[in-house]
Amino acid sequence: MATAAAPAPVHANGAATADSSASRQEFLRVFEKLQTELVKDPLLDNQPQFAADWLAKMLDYNVPGGKLNRGMAVVDVLRSLKNGQALTEDEVFRANVLGWCIEWLQAFFLVADDIMDGSVTRRGQPCWFRLPKVGLVACNDSIILEACIYRILKTHFGKSEYYTQLLDLFHETTYQTSHGQLLDLITAPIGTVDLSKYTLPTYMRIVTFKTAFYSFYLPVACGMLIGGVREEGSFDLAQEICIQMGQYFQIQDDYLDCYGDPEVIGKIGTDIQDNKCSWMVVQALQRAQEQQKEVIKANYGKDDATAVAKVKAVYNELQLEAVFKQYEQESYARLTKLIEGQSQLPQEVFTLLLAKIYKRMK
Amino acid sequence: MATAAAPAPVHANGAATADSSASRQEFLRVFEKLQTELVKDPLLDNQPQFAADWLAKMLDYNVPGGKLNRGMAVVDVLRSLKNGQALTEDEVFRANVLGWCIEWLQAFFLVADDIMDGSVTRRGQPCWFRLPKVGLVACNDSIILEACIYRILKTHFGKSEYYTQLLDLFHETTYQTSHGQLLDLITAPIGTVDLSKYTLPTYMRIVTFKTAFYSFYLPVACGMLIGGVREEGSFDLAQEICIQMGQYFQIQDDYLDCYGDPEVIGKIGTDIQDNKCSWMVVQALQRAQEQQKEVIKANYGKDDATAVAKVKAVYNELQLEAVFKQYEQESYARLTKLIEGQSQLPQEVFTLLLAKIYKRMK
Repeated sequence: MATAAAPAPVHANGAATADSSASRQEFLRVFEKLQTELVKDPLLDNQPQFAADWLAKMLDYNVPGGKLNRGMAVVDVLRSLKNGQALTEDEVFRANVLGWCIEWLQAFFLVADDIMDGSVTRRGQPCWFRLPKVGLVACNDSIILEACIYRILKTHFGKSEYYTQLLDLFHETTYQTSHGQLLDLITAPIGTVDLSKYTLPTYMRIVTFKTAFYSFYLPVACGMLIGGVREEGSFDLAQEICIQMGQYFQIQDDYLDCYGDPEVIGKIGTDIQDNKCSWMVVQALQRAQEQQKEVIKANYGKDDATAVAKVKAVYNELQLEAVFKQYEQESYARLTKLIEGQSQLPQEVFTLLLAKIYKRMK
Repeated sequence: MATAAAPAPVHANGAATADSSASRQEFLRVFEKLQTELVKDPLLDNQPQFAADWLAKMLDYNVPGGKLNRGMAVVDVLRSLKNGQALTEDEVFRANVLGWCIEWLQAFFLVADDIMDGSVTRRGQPCWFRLPKVGLVACNDSIILEACIYRILKTHFGKSEYYTQLLDLFHETTYQTSHGQLLDLITAPIGTVDLSKYTLPTYMRIVTFKTAFYSFYLPVACGMLIGGVREEGSFDLAQEICIQMGQYFQIQDDYLDCYGDPEVIGKIGTDIQDNKCSWMVVQALQRAQEQQKEVIKANYGKDDATAVAKVKAVYNELQLEAVFKQYEQESYARLTKLIEGQSQLPQEVFTLLLAKIYKRMK
């Protein structure tokens, strides 16, 4: 399973870029504050300097180095909920704290994921467990990363009336994501190629649990809680919309891995070589004739340019670009109908997110 | 660091054994109920059979196979708090559910610990990650084990007025335990021998964070929450007492590893061979002459009977048995004074626990 990067911010007009950079700086300042609090956490009762140094470095290395789109989405959601009313400094701060909790959650899963996948690099640097001084201590660091979330929530939201809902939300999302990871890990065990398991229902379930809940629903639900939304029905609705967006987003990511312009997406796709349960191969297997299936089986999961080209040739024969375009159109129409068909939440909460991902080129 | 097994139940009279076996059966029935609930968890929305089977097997393999003393202590604490008043069926059930949450917490840490330590066996069977079908998927299973705790708490305590306190308690204990693990891992990195780090303050801190909070304070605090205790001061007091008991318990475990009768403790100690930061070596290094230190340095951490005998000879020269006996006496006196000097909680909450560990032979 390829894991999609979160949507990059786009702007209705180019002039917004300076603003966006300012928000990013502000967001990063909140990270520094949270990191300092954790290193001095009274619960650890004057931890020895060597442990404090380890914690600080481990957080620096693993938490803030991503695109931060998930984390920064919380304040956008809150702004949309307030219908353009200016946010107070405190509201922005709280949204950013929850945004960081989402980034921490991602870091926790990625550190563990890299160990399990035997990955080499992450975000342009060696994976944390690859550092000679770290090794499998990374397994415990992943546990610490998760535990930090609840220290942060306790410190900054422990007295909020929605504290318990926040805890439940993070717990549920963690449970869902770890279930998605399990499905992914046991559907395509490392080192084995068994394409019979690459079916559409399996694919959709993995995408939903492994990515959509934490990448799309979690930021929206966090913004809603800060914004005062309490009706369970509104959360259910937001979840339905966000899950569909998350599914679309991951499918698009799989499409771009194969058909995106490497110059634009900034990397060369390797899903075919890596034996990934990608939407592309799932669609191909659904449509292929016996002979085409044989070509895929013989060449999928091989780190060899000729083999990759043969798989891509089958994708072309099956016109998967057109299949994706049609899916994209239908998905967009379905989402728009869902968003416009409700009046429980401001449409902008979702349309802003949707605008950031629909027909993106990278 | 050796990790002590929790205290085995002892009885004022031998006749209690049948009772204890009945409690154990009852406790195990609660496990089955919780396991069934998790496998059918509606949050996972009809999980596929292969994932449900994996979860059920993973839980069976890792959760109930220990001595269960930590988990079964919760109902004892609750009974003591009620001053002999009979517990309702519901109270026993709730105590047992929380007891299982503690066992789940331990399983979560042990699965990860075994991966990091490269262990071979656990509780008389191969470590979970050693099974060929599992491997590093165990890393995600450890995450799932932890996430199960919060599903169980939500299901069975989500409507209790102390639900949030329970969540905070489990979060804090997890953070403390992972900090203890970190200290342990970076004080004695696998494969290196650096005895200069084996000091008493380091030892005491590792023991406190890695073992005492979750093994002693957590069961007591769980019993107190069910039993209606709410004053923060009572929890602070219980923590102070439990931490001292936990420290004593681990020190005793380290002593028994060296001087216990293998026939009685059921295993042959290997702390010296395993380069463990044990209380014995810490005490030896504090008291040794230069020449004795050299003997320890040259022979500690070697899997060789002659080397082990040389280290033990130094322990004998330094009369560490007597050092332990004196520590034991002082520690018991200090604990008794603490317990008898307070009237916030029934003394039996602590004296029962103390009776189970003081001067145990195994």
